[in-house]
Amino acid sequence: MKGIFITFEGIDGCGKSTQTALCKTWLEELGRNVLLVREPGGTKIGERIRELLLDKKNSSMAPMTELFLFEAARAQIVEETIKPALSEGTIVICDRFFDSSYAYQGCARGLGPEMVSRLNMDATGGLAPDITFFLDISVEGAIKRRNTRGEEKDRIESAGDSFQEKVREGFIRAASGDKRIVTVDASADPETIFKQIQDKIKELL
Amino acid sequence: MKGIFITFEGIDGCGKSTQTALCKTWLEELGRNVLLVREPGGTKIGERIRELLLDKKNSSMAPMTELFLFEAARAQIVEETIKPALSEGTIVICDRFFDSSYAYQGCARGLGPEMVSRLNMDATGGLAPDITFFLDISVEGAIKRRNTRGEEKDRIESAGDSFQEKVREGFIRAASGDKRIVTVDASADPETIFKQIQDKIKELL
Repeated sequence: MKGIFITFEGIDGCGKSTQTALCKTWLEELGRNVLLVREPGGTKIGERIRELLLDKKNSSMAPMTELFLFEAARAQIVEETIKPALSEGTIVICDRFFDSSYAYQGCARGLGPEMVSRLNMDATGGLAPDITFFLDISVEGAIKRRNTRGEEKDRIESAGDSFQEKVREGFIRAASGDKRIVTVDASADPETIFKQIQDKIKELL
Repeated sequence: MKGIFITFEGIDGCGKSTQTALCKTWLEELGRNVLLVREPGGTKIGERIRELLLDKKNSSMAPMTELFLFEAARAQIVEETIKPALSEGTIVICDRFFDSSYAYQGCARGLGPEMVSRLNMDATGGLAPDITFFLDISVEGAIKRRNTRGEEKDRIESAGDSFQEKVREGFIRAASGDKRIVTVDASADPETIFKQIQDKIKELL
């Protein structure tokens, strides 16, 4: 059986965790091996990079440093986890992948989407997801959902609402240029969203 | 007064620490502000990246991850430390800089010097040293010197002698293509080496 690589993208509070979990359970019930990982992180080295990236004490981090750290964690998870799993026929679900660098560092931080796309290719050796779900929600809608969760914000989440707005625009830009990315209205209820995601994944199975 | 950016390169045990220290003392005696930094590191964020890079527990680190982590530390030290110091007229001496990525990751790890040169430019925004001293020594000569120091080897130093040989070849290749890099015979005694370095720096002062 062929491995499938599925990624979920969107601003914080768009509902990625809910949908990735639903997806994993459903695909396992269908008898598939499923690996759910998150970026940055997902490997021992990647989790240490994640700590560095999200630590609020690192407020002086240069945008290029941030980008390189994300690419470092990405290169590690691709090599150590994603590629081996796919070659064994596992379905890999990744909570965030390189489109996040495109939107956050390329668009919102202003480093430029072209350079980020180039580094994304360096980090993955050209591996791209088979399908990507962009859970699109307004910044206000995401804030409402985040407040319900009551979690403390990390360094990147603390960048403010106008930053989140730019990130959302970045994702919209990425989705407009690539058929791999399926935009889903994430203001709907979780069941409605999941139904759309299931339909798309069924086409790949 | 114009800032000057001086870097020192070479395999471990070539005598960089000795020469950078002599250089700093001499230039300060001439009345200049001198900043001596090391790569990876030199900033709070960079030192945390350094720990990750040199930690022997991270033996599964992918070569691309290693490269991105070096570039992350580099982007931070350039932005936070080197550029501000140079613009204030300080002489910045850096123990290792982007030629190390060229030799270690590009040549010895086999990622390719072209890609590494491209990422080096991304990390520095095009900032290059005014002069670079490549302290060239045979791998045997360097081992002898390292054994005298009696320090424990870090993750990268532990990669073995044939790896060090490839690193040395990488530096020789970099030096052959760039007049910025001055090759110094590092098997000579420290005073002889320092005299040559002084003569070259005097031309820049």
